[in-house]
Amino acid sequence: MAIQLGHNQYGKAENRVVRVYRDADRHTIRDLSVSSALRGRFEDAHITGDQKDVLPTDTQKNTAFAFAKEKGVGAIEDFGLTLADHFISRCPGADGARVAIEEYAWDRIPVDGAGHDYSFVQGGGGVRTTVINMDGYGADRRAHVVSGIKDLVLFKSTGSEFSGFFEDKYTTLEPTKDRIMATSLVARWRYDRTDVDWDKSYAAIRTTLLRQFAVVHSLALQQTLYSMGRAVLEQYREVAEIKFSAPNKHHFLVDLSPFHVENPGEVFIAADRPYGLIEASLHRDDATPAGNAWLGVPGFC
Amino acid sequence: MAIQLGHNQYGKAENRVVRVYRDADRHTIRDLSVSSALRGRFEDAHITGDQKDVLPTDTQKNTAFAFAKEKGVGAIEDFGLTLADHFISRCPGADGARVAIEEYAWDRIPVDGAGHDYSFVQGGGGVRTTVINMDGYGADRRAHVVSGIKDLVLFKSTGSEFSGFFEDKYTTLEPTKDRIMATSLVARWRYDRTDVDWDKSYAAIRTTLLRQFAVVHSLALQQTLYSMGRAVLEQYREVAEIKFSAPNKHHFLVDLSPFHVENPGEVFIAADRPYGLIEASLHRDDATPAGNAWLGVPGFC
Amino acid sequence: MAIQLGHNQYGKAENRVVRVYRDADRHTIRDLSVSSALRGRFEDAHITGDQKDVLPTDTQKNTAFAFAKEKGVGAIEDFGLTLADHFISRCPGADGARVAIEEYAWDRIPVDGAGHDYSFVQGGGGVRTTVINMDGYGADRRAHVVSGIKDLVLFKSTGSEFSGFFEDKYTTLEPTKDRIMATSLVARWRYDRTDVDWDKSYAAIRTTLLRQFAVVHSLALQQTLYSMGRAVLEQYREVAEIKFSAPNKHHFLVDLSPFHVENPGEVFIAADRPYGLIEASLHRDDATPAGNAWLGVPGFC
Amino acid sequence: MAIQLGHNQYGKAENRVVRVYRDADRHTIRDLSVSSALRGRFEDAHITGDQKDVLPTDTQKNTAFAFAKEKGVGAIEDFGLTLADHFISRCPGADGARVAIEEYAWDRIPVDGAGHDYSFVQGGGGVRTTVINMDGYGADRRAHVVSGIKDLVLFKSTGSEFSGFFEDKYTTLEPTKDRIMATSLVARWRYDRTDVDWDKSYAAIRTTLLRQFAVVHSLALQQTLYSMGRAVLEQYREVAEIKFSAPNKHHFLVDLSPFHVENPGEVFIAADRPYGLIEASLHRDDATPAGNAWLGVPGFC
Repeated sequence: MAIQLGHNQYGKAENRVVRVYRDADRHTIRDLSVSSALRGRFEDAHITGDQKDVLPTDTQKNTAFAFAKEKGVGAIEDFGLTLADHFISRCPGADGARVAIEEYAWDRIPVDGAGHDYSFVQGGGGVRTTVINMDGYGADRRAHVVSGIKDLVLFKSTGSEFSGFFEDKYTTLEPTKDRIMATSLVARWRYDRTDVDWDKSYAAIRTTLLRQFAVVHSLALQQTLYSMGRAVLEQYREVAEIKFSAPNKHHFLVDLSPFHVENPGEVFIAADRPYGLIEASLHRDDATPAGNAWLGVPGFC
Repeated sequence: MAIQLGHNQYGKAENRVVRVYRDADRHTIRDLSVSSALRGRFEDAHITGDQKDVLPTDTQKNTAFAFAKEKGVGAIEDFGLTLADHFISRCPGADGARVAIEEYAWDRIPVDGAGHDYSFVQGGGGVRTTVINMDGYGADRRAHVVSGIKDLVLFKSTGSEFSGFFEDKYTTLEPTKDRIMATSLVARWRYDRTDVDWDKSYAAIRTTLLRQFAVVHSLALQQTLYSMGRAVLEQYREVAEIKFSAPNKHHFLVDLSPFHVENPGEVFIAADRPYGLIEASLHRDDATPAGNAWLGVPGFC
Repeated sequence: MAIQLGHNQYGKAENRVVRVYRDADRHTIRDLSVSSALRGRFEDAHITGDQKDVLPTDTQKNTAFAFAKEKGVGAIEDFGLTLADHFISRCPGADGARVAIEEYAWDRIPVDGAGHDYSFVQGGGGVRTTVINMDGYGADRRAHVVSGIKDLVLFKSTGSEFSGFFEDKYTTLEPTKDRIMATSLVARWRYDRTDVDWDKSYAAIRTTLLRQFAVVHSLALQQTLYSMGRAVLEQYREVAEIKFSAPNKHHFLVDLSPFHVENPGEVFIAADRPYGLIEASLHRDDATPAGNAWLGVPGFC
Repeated sequence: MAIQLGHNQYGKAENRVVRVYRDADRHTIRDLSVSSALRGRFEDAHITGDQKDVLPTDTQKNTAFAFAKEKGVGAIEDFGLTLADHFISRCPGADGARVAIEEYAWDRIPVDGAGHDYSFVQGGGGVRTTVINMDGYGADRRAHVVSGIKDLVLFKSTGSEFSGFFEDKYTTLEPTKDRIMATSLVARWRYDRTDVDWDKSYAAIRTTLLRQFAVVHSLALQQTLYSMGRAVLEQYREVAEIKFSAPNKHHFLVDLSPFHVENPGEVFIAADRPYGLIEASLHRDDATPAGNAWLGVPGFC
């Protein structure tokens, strides 16, 4: 019997890179959390402690900040691809890299009917994400982009039912034709190419997800997610696959009958735990293979 | 030497009351966290364990949910006043009550250019709060309303300086005429009356706070907060006093000189801890006395 | 009508100071979060933005770290008193200071039956705290020490009842003679002098609090807290006052009757929200006045 | 082009099951968070919304609580296996199940030198975990057990170096022969059989992990993890594979030279973000194939 080192990677997580563009009076900002990880031939670092092939996590951090100026920060997908290419070509032991980025949205503060030039308020409506997985370089380079949105908190006060389910001796749930449905959505979609207008694609997909959630009459959270994913795959040819993780944030109708008060779908208690958790994925049947695209994508591998 | 029971109170915290109005096709929702606490003559409960004068926290919870239907949920200030009046008149031992409410904002999901009737997405831009402190009833009733906003995350990419400060042997900070200023603001303001159009007042004060943050050239976070508070007191006669708690969320300019890269105010690292913390209050010199208004207001007493 | 600046203070929060003592082979560590805040004559900083009397929060941070070496870190109370004295004597505008410190406990890792010299594992059992409030210096110096413990999570599987409470039309709770009682205790006690063996006093009071929680038959969380506070005041002459904030972390007996399963106090669901919240204070009738001792003590002012 | 439903699963997450054993005067408690998820033939639920093959998440919750009484709660691995077997045999659409359980440790409160019979204080030292992945039943049943520990916070004040690493133009880190090493460890190990004394195995592996962290001189966090994993695989024949995720919780030596104070490894600042993140796995070369063992194991798939 011998003991083998298996999959391993290392990097710097959650570099909070804030890039201000101030060339004009009207500033723009990109507010990021950048995490990088390298994988490859790092056996020595693990087994003997020899670090000669290791590009330290501190250097990865420095590079993320330096590139924010040297290369600039446009779409997070482009920034991630640039960092991944750099790390693989630079680090002696690296065969592959994963760069995960989150971007926090800011709205201009309204002043006298117009957005201010350099003062912002943080909005909600979800955090934009991307995970770049890249292997090899030059002719062998394979780059995967999985973008998405998280913390997108959604709520329907009607238009949702749940009935006709299997029952056994532990069933107490009553079927319902009208309930609240709420979730904090995480969606991640895999692009099958990298020549995409990322900012435009993100905005369009986000709009489609919201719209479908709103207009589809829900028979179950599963069916809502499926219709949301289907709409994205039908409308955006560049998307090969989409995955969802959606907690069913239960809102229980409160029993007011002990107080002789009727409650026809008007007063609910929002519960914390436990919660339902629905996970689903959809893909085109002609999609390119996923390869390492989903490697280390939190909650989706 | 004898041991005395001092100030005490008890209640139910963070009742997540969600009220849906569905009388018309276009639903409205009010999404609240309601906390109540009673104070008064509860020595027996503490010293002998006799609960005969105690309205249990479970009953306080039930009441919050029942009232959401029986009384309805309009402005959180009105809902809190109604609950406080009820508890003081009902609970044998209660001389006073504090009802603290948070309200989470929801935006209608846009569909084909219009907001959907019953589908919502959670926005950002701060959480509305109120704390009702009430003592006595009938002729002795004294009701205090302290409303506010929290988690209002603000950012200026310029228009902020910090210089001319006192220096000693532990000073290393360089004065600057141009820095990022960011905070996650908590503001709480005390009304000196209760016949206020609460929803309108909240929206107007929030607008004023945002506007002042945007337009005032900052010499320090203290001076920014002062100008924000002053604008509120000048414009809203119903406000007697306003208090702020504002972390200085440091964004440090990254030193890129080791890489021979200039960084003229463009790349920053957003730091977590430590952070500056600025607390300030302003009031009219003719304001009514605060009395118990600030009792148990988190971070402001 | 004129607008006045009221109470204000500023400082640096959550400096994560870690001090290692390595003079001997057997290291000791003190792992702290240090927050300082200064109050006094800072009108100019607020009203005109003039910082000439302001010792910046960055300098406060530097001082905390430098003092960890220059003065050393013994008991957190002593470290806080030293910092407060320094800030008041040094900062032109400061009349008073608050220094709040948390200390995280570490246990030596057991190796072959003995604790390791320099390897540690973080334990639980609560976070030690202190808040120093100091006003003036020299002959006018008034120093207050409020120490305590937080995040002390306690649980009793029996020995707790709750019955005989006031009932009204919103009451549904059944009285019980046997329930689970659980809390995440925060206790803070005010010393009436500063010549205390702080480490010894903390350990002893912590032991007493735990013991009383364990041995007292509970009729209500109020009565449990009262007995815990009384024991501390009776046994520790240096303590003038003690305050508690204790969430009632509800563990609800699960109704298994739909499955024809009995549940005599054996299966519970631990709930998150809402929770009961009991706050209480006890003091000696001959205690020194509290003065500013509780100023800005989170949750207790 | 057609759109396909891919991998999906659904269940109830974070059921907070607390089981008290009170048959004797000396109570024992098991405090769990139980999450279940079912996978299989659920296309109808997604595509048409037909729930006839769906065992609702509410029923999964009920079952977890009912089984805590009916089957009892011993080792979390046994409880998880029992639940997984039940769900697969019961739910019409389920081909597989994942049951993930966390267990929170409690210590008896010491009273007069002995642990109390029914009063407990929550300790630290890590949360015990298990993830059961099961496919099929009867002759086709394949059960996988991946157990572990998380939130195990470790610290070495010396015995750690980091040097000899690859340097490029973005390198600023200085090599060091003496630094602080700290992490909040997550370790998960796969058993290659299910006839294990789970409680004993967990305690032994935890002890080994701690011991190795303490005694191994560290050349890098990678090498420390490798030595910890190697020791587990060498000593515990029932373990086929072990994986680690370890943030490098940086403690930076504070530069006190501006104040003319030396700092020979004594004063550090504990940083929050960014942090290094080291992930590694080790396995026997004769280990059974992992199959679905790591499916949906947070952070390790």
